[in-house]
Amino acid sequence: MQSENHKKTIYAAILGAGTVGTGVYKLCQEMKSEFVQKTGADLVVKKVLVRNASKKREGIEDAVLTDNWKEIIEDPEIDIVIEVMGGIEPAKTYIIEALEAGKQIVTANKDLLAEHGQEVMAAAEKAGADLEFEAAVAGAIPIIRPLKQSMAGNRISEVMGIVNGTTNYILTKMSEKGMDYAEALAQATELGYAEADPTADVEGYDAGRKMAIMASIAFNSRVTFPQVYTEGITKISADDIRYAKEFGYVIKLLGLARNTPEGIEVKVHPMLIDENHPLAGVKDAFNAVFVHADAMDDAMFMGRGAGQMPTASAVMGDVVDVMRNLVYNCCGRVGCSCYKQLPVKQIGETKSKFFLRIHAQDKPGVLANIASVLGNNGVSIAQVVQKSRKGGIAELVIITDEVQENNFNDAMTIFSGMSVVKEISGVIRVY
Amino acid sequence: MQSENHKKTIYAAILGAGTVGTGVYKLCQEMKSEFVQKTGADLVVKKVLVRNASKKREGIEDAVLTDNWKEIIEDPEIDIVIEVMGGIEPAKTYIIEALEAGKQIVTANKDLLAEHGQEVMAAAEKAGADLEFEAAVAGAIPIIRPLKQSMAGNRISEVMGIVNGTTNYILTKMSEKGMDYAEALAQATELGYAEADPTADVEGYDAGRKMAIMASIAFNSRVTFPQVYTEGITKISADDIRYAKEFGYVIKLLGLARNTPEGIEVKVHPMLIDENHPLAGVKDAFNAVFVHADAMDDAMFMGRGAGQMPTASAVMGDVVDVMRNLVYNCCGRVGCSCYKQLPVKQIGETKSKFFLRIHAQDKPGVLANIASVLGNNGVSIAQVVQKSRKGGIAELVIITDEVQENNFNDAMTIFSGMSVVKEISGVIRVY
Repeated sequence: MQSENHKKTIYAAILGAGTVGTGVYKLCQEMKSEFVQKTGADLVVKKVLVRNASKKREGIEDAVLTDNWKEIIEDPEIDIVIEVMGGIEPAKTYIIEALEAGKQIVTANKDLLAEHGQEVMAAAEKAGADLEFEAAVAGAIPIIRPLKQSMAGNRISEVMGIVNGTTNYILTKMSEKGMDYAEALAQATELGYAEADPTADVEGYDAGRKMAIMASIAFNSRVTFPQVYTEGITKISADDIRYAKEFGYVIKLLGLARNTPEGIEVKVHPMLIDENHPLAGVKDAFNAVFVHADAMDDAMFMGRGAGQMPTASAVMGDVVDVMRNLVYNCCGRVGCSCYKQLPVKQIGETKSKFFLRIHAQDKPGVLANIASVLGNNGVSIAQVVQKSRKGGIAELVIITDEVQENNFNDAMTIFSGMSVVKEISGVIRVY
Repeated sequence: MQSENHKKTIYAAILGAGTVGTGVYKLCQEMKSEFVQKTGADLVVKKVLVRNASKKREGIEDAVLTDNWKEIIEDPEIDIVIEVMGGIEPAKTYIIEALEAGKQIVTANKDLLAEHGQEVMAAAEKAGADLEFEAAVAGAIPIIRPLKQSMAGNRISEVMGIVNGTTNYILTKMSEKGMDYAEALAQATELGYAEADPTADVEGYDAGRKMAIMASIAFNSRVTFPQVYTEGITKISADDIRYAKEFGYVIKLLGLARNTPEGIEVKVHPMLIDENHPLAGVKDAFNAVFVHADAMDDAMFMGRGAGQMPTASAVMGDVVDVMRNLVYNCCGRVGCSCYKQLPVKQIGETKSKFFLRIHAQDKPGVLANIASVLGNNGVSIAQVVQKSRKGGIAELVIITDEVQENNFNDAMTIFSGMSVVKEISGVIRVY
């Protein structure tokens, strides 16, 4: 029921006036009359928190800039705090203080949620407040709301995603143009898709944080970033991509979260997926999330995973939702959904298929030798192709059946001690 | 704020025990404990309305079956009415009576919403009640909630979708197996993808109803089914598909809704789309909706558009949402979003590119003649290829630039009166 004395004007503060903050401010101005129609209330940005309030900001009125957090936290008129500053601190402190002061939160902060989600969600729960974070995962793509609400009638068993645009851009260029990793990274950097220090992207940390958040929601059980196995794309070669293509696969950096009877698996690593899988067609800087659940079967969500306005779009969807809750006096109606406590598996306990390339001495009995090492460790071979023979060295490409990772690693350890095996390369999992 | 005296048990009634109704009942039982965790309340299906209450229903307790609407409408304990009987009447009367009796509605009824949406939404608004209908469009795919909520910070300019699984299955088989229309339809019927009378699917009516609903929400202005131009797939030939492929296109039955400065365009017709467009890869009975908006840019949502459990999944997402609203006493918080009154264009006023095949006399001057008729009517040619010459007849395949449909039709009328033009076939729009 709409409260009789509901607020006609809702005041918000934006923390951070970087790319995303400026985009959010812009949408608050441009969509003003639409928001009134959609929610019955007028949205006014009263303050924008910045480090240096005397510095001019393109597109933001000087009067709203402040470098004093107290002007926000102590202002009882401000109902919504939009945190788009990023990083753990001071964002975490600000969010918790704002919740304690009775304010609602919209945040785009994946680092914070993937590591301290429990603490901030508990603070929101205690305050009976909204804490919404659609923008923290996969930019503009609506995925948090679908997972929490639209799919509430399902048991979700798998969430798989291309949730890092930088690495998807690099792999797309390697695949389409035959570039090697360094060249594709250089191009991504030049175009602004990769940061000066690309570590968080190319090593899979950024994707891992998003997977921790999605797994927590999909399986109703907390997964934190340190529990996510991550492996990046820096070792993927043009050869790997070419060979994969010959087998009908493309290579993507995939986040994979599964709910199994023995526990939750969450990992990020390069993976060969069938060229006909919907995720295989997701190119350049686009993101996509593929979900399998018992009732709805398969669904996929694709869109812009980053960028000023796409991220601001996701933030504003949440802001409008919070405005509706304020108007109807029902903040906190969709709270933390981690009501189970499921174990999270170690990577070695999970199962995968593997693609690998082995350079070995080209003499009788070597293939039998390699096959028996695999067999003795429980690794069965699905496909094997001899790619080349030169200078007494044969190159074998092997795709295994599904195997427990510990067993596979044992076989790799034995290979590394065998004189006939010259090199193991391109060890990539297969979906 | 959660109401202190919030209901610990929420009673629902399901109208209809067909395929979807049985699926909904099943999820209500199977997910019982999850719903308590998600909403804080227990969901109990108290009644299932059927025509013949003495007939046994597999999976539904006899005790809840009733053929008496009064047992539902007059039961003050029942808070949620889940309408999955389909058709305009008596569904419409039941929904309006239920709203007047203070109940919340979840419905999967696209026919009703596409034709009488305004009336039922007004009744919900008057009652301050929820009326949710995610399952009415594109089955399990979350699209109503994303359009209404997640994208609230955007101005949406285009919604394009493959929203009918039957026709997508038929076109996929025609494209992949070279089947003609009749053969592919026969296979779809045999597999249960097409109904005994496939008219609503193959003529685009089903897709047209879904597009009316999506356009209304996306553009915040009511569009009803009679305002949607529909054209089916019955005239698509194996030749059309083969030629389209040669030009790098696939043929899909697309729903297309655009918000232009001159008004809203909503149409359903076969269309050539680039083979690299994400919608081109949506195969068999899958549905997908592609949305373009100013802030988020492009997004696509793909999944099962029909079927018992996928549809039940969408219904239950809404039921859980309504349960949360009941617990927090905030029903009606997301109401009708048609707060504008935009004109809807006639099909002749819209612009399209066209693909067409012309069989004409193979003699000097005929191409010039054809080209000048097009030119005189404002139709410019983007591509033209002469496909064959035999028996004094040449086959031309033409792709035009974008042209107002009225102008294009004028040219076609002139062709039909020209003795050198023997046949015009395969007139299909191009995205």
